[in-house]
Amino acid sequence: MRFSSSLSRLINDHSSYSKLLVLLSVSGSGSLLAYAQSHKDVANPVIVGPEQSDPTTKKKEKIVVLGTGWGGISFLKDIDTSSYDIQVVSPRNYFAFTPLLPSVTCGTVEARSIVEPIRNILMKKSGEFHFWEAECLKIDPENKRIHCRSNINDNLAGNNDFSLEYDYLVVAVGAQVNTFNTPGVLEHCHFLKEVEDAQSIRRSVIDCFEKSVLPDLTEEERRTNLHFVIVGGGPTGIEFAAELHDFFEEDLFKLYPSVKDLVKITIIQSGDHILNTFDARISSFAEEKFKRDGIEVLTGSRVVNVSDKHIDMKLKANGQDFSVPHGMVVWSTGIGSRPVIQDLMKTNGQGSRRVLATDEWLRVKGSEHVYAIGDCATVDQRKIKEDILNIFETADKDKSGTLTKYEFQDVVEDILIRYPQIELYLKNNHISEVQDLLKDSDGKERKEVTIEQFKTALSQVDSQTKSFPATAQVAAQQGTYLSSCFNRKTHCEQNPEGPRHFSSTGRHQFRPFCYKHLGQFAPLGGEQAAAELPGDWVSMGHSTQWLWYSIYASKQVSWRTRVLVVSDWTRRFIFGRDSSRI
Amino acid sequence: MRFSSSLSRLINDHSSYSKLLVLLSVSGSGSLLAYAQSHKDVANPVIVGPEQSDPTTKKKEKIVVLGTGWGGISFLKDIDTSSYDIQVVSPRNYFAFTPLLPSVTCGTVEARSIVEPIRNILMKKSGEFHFWEAECLKIDPENKRIHCRSNINDNLAGNNDFSLEYDYLVVAVGAQVNTFNTPGVLEHCHFLKEVEDAQSIRRSVIDCFEKSVLPDLTEEERRTNLHFVIVGGGPTGIEFAAELHDFFEEDLFKLYPSVKDLVKITIIQSGDHILNTFDARISSFAEEKFKRDGIEVLTGSRVVNVSDKHIDMKLKANGQDFSVPHGMVVWSTGIGSRPVIQDLMKTNGQGSRRVLATDEWLRVKGSEHVYAIGDCATVDQRKIKEDILNIFETADKDKSGTLTKYEFQDVVEDILIRYPQIELYLKNNHISEVQDLLKDSDGKERKEVTIEQFKTALSQVDSQTKSFPATAQVAAQQGTYLSSCFNRKTHCEQNPEGPRHFSSTGRHQFRPFCYKHLGQFAPLGGEQAAAELPGDWVSMGHSTQWLWYSIYASKQVSWRTRVLVVSDWTRRFIFGRDSSRI
Repeated sequence: MRFSSSLSRLINDHSSYSKLLVLLSVSGSGSLLAYAQSHKDVANPVIVGPEQSDPTTKKKEKIVVLGTGWGGISFLKDIDTSSYDIQVVSPRNYFAFTPLLPSVTCGTVEARSIVEPIRNILMKKSGEFHFWEAECLKIDPENKRIHCRSNINDNLAGNNDFSLEYDYLVVAVGAQVNTFNTPGVLEHCHFLKEVEDAQSIRRSVIDCFEKSVLPDLTEEERRTNLHFVIVGGGPTGIEFAAELHDFFEEDLFKLYPSVKDLVKITIIQSGDHILNTFDARISSFAEEKFKRDGIEVLTGSRVVNVSDKHIDMKLKANGQDFSVPHGMVVWSTGIGSRPVIQDLMKTNGQGSRRVLATDEWLRVKGSEHVYAIGDCATVDQRKIKEDILNIFETADKDKSGTLTKYEFQDVVEDILIRYPQIELYLKNNHISEVQDLLKDSDGKERKEVTIEQFKTALSQVDSQTKSFPATAQVAAQQGTYLSSCFNRKTHCEQNPEGPRHFSSTGRHQFRPFCYKHLGQFAPLGGEQAAAELPGDWVSMGHSTQWLWYSIYASKQVSWRTRVLVVSDWTRRFIFGRDSSRI
Repeated sequence: MRFSSSLSRLINDHSSYSKLLVLLSVSGSGSLLAYAQSHKDVANPVIVGPEQSDPTTKKKEKIVVLGTGWGGISFLKDIDTSSYDIQVVSPRNYFAFTPLLPSVTCGTVEARSIVEPIRNILMKKSGEFHFWEAECLKIDPENKRIHCRSNINDNLAGNNDFSLEYDYLVVAVGAQVNTFNTPGVLEHCHFLKEVEDAQSIRRSVIDCFEKSVLPDLTEEERRTNLHFVIVGGGPTGIEFAAELHDFFEEDLFKLYPSVKDLVKITIIQSGDHILNTFDARISSFAEEKFKRDGIEVLTGSRVVNVSDKHIDMKLKANGQDFSVPHGMVVWSTGIGSRPVIQDLMKTNGQGSRRVLATDEWLRVKGSEHVYAIGDCATVDQRKIKEDILNIFETADKDKSGTLTKYEFQDVVEDILIRYPQIELYLKNNHISEVQDLLKDSDGKERKEVTIEQFKTALSQVDSQTKSFPATAQVAAQQGTYLSSCFNRKTHCEQNPEGPRHFSSTGRHQFRPFCYKHLGQFAPLGGEQAAAELPGDWVSMGHSTQWLWYSIYASKQVSWRTRVLVVSDWTRRFIFGRDSSRI
């Protein structure tokens, strides 16, 4: 025993000895090769799946992906690893199904049930992947290099900093909370962006109850501690309020009956209505349901300061200041750029912008070989008026100075693809065909259109240019789109499939990214939900909640999380939610 | 909307207004009573179950219970709430099934699956209970009062300090980790006593792996980070090592294949064998299994210092010092008294002792009306030699100065109950009957026994006095015993059921606490376990692991945790353990 332990200690202390040991036992080139192989593994540590490197083939281009949220994962799920060397850097070694975060705050679903280790996801694909749990601190497009730091505690051996080279960089780091510089928000508010946020909210809710039932508190103190404030009336804030209300009604009031009547939930919304990105019917359905549930909705109020015990607001209508005491505040409004993105924007000429801009092919403007998807960037939709002369000239094949119907028809498909705002404009103005735009003021068809008439006809179209919402849906579609572009890169170099270039000749290599809105849900508690479905269909009530259950179960990233989420729901139906403070 | 919200804000700001509102709406004494009732609820907040207070009946005696571990919960489950007013103080608002903590460290079982909110447990009993999430800082037996402080963060309104009066105090606060004053242990080691400890170990294990696969680390650094050290070869440390080994083999090696060969687990044990409280067969079975698994066991080594990257030891045999680098250390040896207990011992004359002592009825020596159960105290077993004269005099009914066989027979039952070490002595010396102790040196029966012969006969018996192990089993049996004493207090005042007093007249009110050892398990990983079962039966291997599963499932405190634990086991079989770092 002692000899073997001393030997192994020796090896441990001086790892070079182990190499020596291997070399000593070498009896042929096979063993030497085996050692060389294992050594290579260590230098490039996280190789998942069989190695496919063949020295005779051309070196694969390296794509580095930053982030493992919706955008990053969608990209990674579809990218062809036989064509690219894929490296992933993210401070979280898992993907989280963020739409269920509000459910995690109250224990309707457990945190572990909505996360899937990134390595599990990658392992399911064949081919090579590397994953590093680290945060990218700096992007250096000039040298095609990023600088990263692991956030693992310093107790462990080895440097936490490293840098990576890339051929292409896919930035999918998401956004951070935006406090709009409101004092006290960072110090005294909870957020709802990460799994840890949801867990900390869950503990705090229980703290508020446990503190409120202690002896020696005045009723006012109990009431203060049991006042739950949510800033932001968007889908996340609303769903959280609904979850909280259900948690109280179905579980906590039974366990803390004496303070039942002192509990209050307030939603603070700066706009006039909650859920104001939804159909007005949903918005008022939610407001009425919340009224019945006793959830107060303070609309038209702006938060100006948050302290540990009070939240100060200003009524927008008359500028009146007022303040309410609170037990906890959840800040669920606004997103801002992460420092690494702000830093990139300073170097690529976007320094004066608020959000990083990409073109319609998701390429970061001013940074070659850098792509951005999801909440960290916004697609800067090309305005048609900037290209109107080029379009006219391209379309006017006979160079007559006027466009005929047939000349216009020839470019219609391309401009519809290149400027999706046209389609939106037609729809909102109930115009059935794009050719109708060229009609005269009396609605009669023109035989030929001059450049001035052409400009006038399209002058209103750009007003419909809209940025995409900061949702999982957009990020996921962008990830899928981008990976399909990379996968078909060689093919599309020969056979470009995008719309024609109006400012030059030829066609764009790919069609621009086009967002397809599949609808959105707003769970409202008490087994009721509201949904906006494709085709302007609005659905509300209990059946919608069941639709929500089935869609959210089907959208899970793995069978493991699917089974866990569904069994969590079942567990909640049978046993209720857990109120242990862990 | 605005009026109602302003009104409710007004009420919120000035809670006394709400009383006014209630008073304004009073139309008769019924309403007033209703208000008074709700107000009373607030002052005595956590009333679970129907109220049974009837002013005509005698005021119930108040039992305050400190702690919600095994001892506290067993006491609470059986205590008769119609006879006592029960108040519970604990810094944790849940009961944790601690024997599964090693499973939580690797995600074999989730933390939430082994905890049950204390209010849920109490609610299942009819009758009144009060629970306060706070830590008892000081016990004041003179004034029958305890001083408590809530550990909830200071952001919330109201004082965190309060004090409670009691008629009887049941101390079940458990023990804390004992570092034996080894430098660096508190700063650099993980422990395995609380749910939070297990969660933090789980995160650290993943950190060690994620750090080790980062680029730019030397092989030695990777090896250091992947060296997992466990100090203590008792059941907890061994089970943790086994869990860790399974976690690596079954899950992590697949996800981190490149560092697979650098991982090492070491157990440091000061004694000559691991599991040295178990049967020797189990101990060597475990050692052999660990040897096959590549888990190193360093026996006869004492830890003298722990730093963030090294652990320094001394070989007991030759005093040789040596040091090994580590990624993480789990300290799983030794328990010590909590500060509140140390403080109590200073006031009740036990200041020079290491552990709080109770008598065999679990009454704290020197502190009237205070009882202690579980790991926070030890039962000071009465030595027979201190009472030998009294026993002889009591038994010698005819005051002849000698004992006949019949006179002795008359007190046998009482002394067997009062001094359980006798039975142990008989068993260990293969003596079938206690009367055989009185035989002469040739093994012949004596007709009469003198006091000197009596002393000699019983002189070796006290050597078998043993303190109970610090296990859940002992704590649970003590809790059940103590509640049964309280429940039958009135009855047993009239009809004492304990052994006779030898130093005075009459009988003890209750039989002393008697521990019944039901055996113990040691899961060894790879679906194998070892068990010591009643009747000196030893069982090892796969079938024992299944026995372990079924016993641990059946011992769960609620159906909720039972279902969760079993479904966690099933989930692990199907999907493996989760390696997300949350």
